[in-house]
Amino acid sequence: MSFIERYRAAHVRTGAPLCIGLDTDAAKLPAPVVEAENPTLAFNTAIIETTSDLCCAYKPNLAFYESGGERGMDALRGTLAAIPKNVLTIGDAKRGDIGNTAERYAAALFEEWKFDAVTVNPLMGMDTLAPFFGYGDRCVFVLALTSNPGSADFQRLMVDGVPLYRHILRRCLDTYGGTGSLGFVVGATHPEELAEIREMIGPEIPLLIPGVGAQGGDAAATIRANAGGVALVNVSRGITAAGRDADFAERARAAAMDFVRQLAEPDPIVADVSGDI
Amino acid sequence: MSFIERYRAAHVRTGAPLCIGLDTDAAKLPAPVVEAENPTLAFNTAIIETTSDLCCAYKPNLAFYESGGERGMDALRGTLAAIPKNVLTIGDAKRGDIGNTAERYAAALFEEWKFDAVTVNPLMGMDTLAPFFGYGDRCVFVLALTSNPGSADFQRLMVDGVPLYRHILRRCLDTYGGTGSLGFVVGATHPEELAEIREMIGPEIPLLIPGVGAQGGDAAATIRANAGGVALVNVSRGITAAGRDADFAERARAAAMDFVRQLAEPDPIVADVSGDI
Repeated sequence: MSFIERYRAAHVRTGAPLCIGLDTDAAKLPAPVVEAENPTLAFNTAIIETTSDLCCAYKPNLAFYESGGERGMDALRGTLAAIPKNVLTIGDAKRGDIGNTAERYAAALFEEWKFDAVTVNPLMGMDTLAPFFGYGDRCVFVLALTSNPGSADFQRLMVDGVPLYRHILRRCLDTYGGTGSLGFVVGATHPEELAEIREMIGPEIPLLIPGVGAQGGDAAATIRANAGGVALVNVSRGITAAGRDADFAERARAAAMDFVRQLAEPDPIVADVSGDI
Repeated sequence: MSFIERYRAAHVRTGAPLCIGLDTDAAKLPAPVVEAENPTLAFNTAIIETTSDLCCAYKPNLAFYESGGERGMDALRGTLAAIPKNVLTIGDAKRGDIGNTAERYAAALFEEWKFDAVTVNPLMGMDTLAPFFGYGDRCVFVLALTSNPGSADFQRLMVDGVPLYRHILRRCLDTYGGTGSLGFVVGATHPEELAEIREMIGPEIPLLIPGVGAQGGDAAATIRANAGGVALVNVSRGITAAGRDADFAERARAAAMDFVRQLAEPDPIVADVSGDI
């Protein structure tokens, strides 16, 4: 099954394009898990147990596991093993490097970790993205307009009257638009640009939309701007940090249910590959 | 000792700003090490033994270790342990992510792996670089103009009559130029731009210059363009892939000696912090 087919099945199952970010900070774990053999893994496993029926995808950000050394890598390995097969996994790694190196990053993320999708950074150029598109059934989310304030520093600089991020969109669409593996990252903190980008790329190109919750993005505005296109709307701390006591996993579930309501799309027309909408 | 002081001592020791890239591809190792318990580590250890007196720094690219899973991480750990203390270590990771995540990457690279320097990707903006500058004695090499052909795709796009990479240089100089930790990555494949960049940033800001050897950059042209500034000129495959038989480590040494000759600076005035040149 392709990424889009798996996405579609997950969306039908949950009724909303929710992605939960597993950016688990080992220094801020709730008391019930700090005594576990691997606290980060214990935390993630509890979150997955109470939320996997509510989300289409989990997105571990690799920074939070790499900073934990061997234990962090063990936590990531265990976390991926604990995610049910009907939930997609997105490796948020934002890698980007010259050709022979990018091949190794693609191998690490798609072969070693077996993520269904990854995030990549396009600054170094189109040749650095190519190796990630050698895996047909996966999705490659290219950074376009990120959710943070600093996204204005370079991504919005005007080139020939058009912001840099639209040049990135254009080049990637022209080169990889037909692969079935191209997606983009666009922050929920930019709803106007999100709507414009969705219009530019059409409904079938997946968007990974971070920034809802702790970063200030609004769920309802995001769903409106996305206009029913293929999307995964990510919430990290808004769900995983909803509770800090013994009931942290139940609180995460309650928060996830709330986001599902906010993100619900009553008529999930997304990715109707028959074109018969 | 600061990064610059350690660099200076290393340069005096070797007479040339040689950095050796440890981009060890586990699938292309010479016969003598493939039977070792950890072939990548055995290879790197042999290379380090025969070349550490000739180089100022080693630069492992993390992709090559991440793609090896647990064994890859063990190889990186063992490699860093095998590098003598008077040789600098550069973690070529090209990370970049929003604030709380960038903090975790900085912790992974500077605290967990204890690299003396790292490479970072500035596309997401100045706020994403800040956490890396919280480690006073280290160096942060920001991607400016990379060595690959695709560097023209976005890095050279013109913004207000100036290429994007110069906007990146300017913003970083203005924000982090006084920290003593700022450096840039500029490919040896662009000698003209390298000379212009060196003139723009002055002699004291370190440049990491990849692309000499297999990628086509010329050692002598690089040294001329760099004009005696603080620099590390990286060679990877040109040294580590010099031999593929039982004498691979000796061949690597011979290649490294050749690059030292090509990169030799007879009067190492670099980083004379007294200003008394």
